[in-house]
Amino acid sequence: MKRKSFEDMECPIARTLERVGEWWSILILRDAVRGSTRFDEFERNLGISPNILSRRLATLVENGFLEKRLYSVTPPRMEYLLTERGKAFRSVLFALTAFGNDHFADDGVALQVVNKRTGRPAKLVVVDARTGKPATGPNFELAPGPAASNAIRGKFGA
Amino acid sequence: MKRKSFEDMECPIARTLERVGEWWSILILRDAVRGSTRFDEFERNLGISPNILSRRLATLVENGFLEKRLYSVTPPRMEYLLTERGKAFRSVLFALTAFGNDHFADDGVALQVVNKRTGRPAKLVVVDARTGKPATGPNFELAPGPAASNAIRGKFGA
Repeated sequence: MKRKSFEDMECPIARTLERVGEWWSILILRDAVRGSTRFDEFERNLGISPNILSRRLATLVENGFLEKRLYSVTPPRMEYLLTERGKAFRSVLFALTAFGNDHFADDGVALQVVNKRTGRPAKLVVVDARTGKPATGPNFELAPGPAASNAIRGKFGA
Repeated sequence: MKRKSFEDMECPIARTLERVGEWWSILILRDAVRGSTRFDEFERNLGISPNILSRRLATLVENGFLEKRLYSVTPPRMEYLLTERGKAFRSVLFALTAFGNDHFADDGVALQVVNKRTGRPAKLVVVDARTGKPATGPNFELAPGPAASNAIRGKFGA
């Protein structure tokens, strides 16, 4: 059962899901944020098969989340470093972390976002920087942007 | 190629991905946030096969994102309403929207989060509510929580 490609959709959510690639890719990015760079680190930490890992890394490189760099010439060995785009994806990872801890951590919090200076867990909220107000309140909604097609306008318009 | 189950992992990101189910489920939740409630609405708007849609809706109900309600007795017809958990998932959807618009909208913004009162697009940032500081800055990191196993401590500890 192959999922349909979202490639040609306009929606930024669908586009991001398409570019990231797969569930595994999100966990690869999580480990990259934590400092993993080498194939065998990802393989060991994720318990993922080398074939799948190799494909997921290639997609993440192709779509600009990671860049490949030679760190040893003999033998030739590559490492995978987060690009600016990969680093920016922390906003999605952190939103997932907060949601997972709020909803699926009845047995306690195993992983959280922490302020390195104070050592305190962050209380993560998505806000509108224009006002500082939480964007998950009732005043915010998904709406067509300036480049929306008629299809998007029909579906998401007021 | 079946992905491995993340069910037994401790990580809140992995747990959320596991419970949500699949890429399609995220787009189903997006449409539910926009007001879709009925099977045929989801089917038409997403261009998804009825089989897959039916399975994804069942998973989202089972995991507490949606609840099923009879809205017509003859003929019997069900609608799918967002639960509090489903509504809370807007934080993840909005983080994905902001990321997608920042990184994959070279042809313009087709869909965005808007403040309904002012009509202005929100500038979405994930912040630490304790300080109001963006959590994507260098001072924040993923770290083990109080309920972390030794495995998580070994992997994510300092």
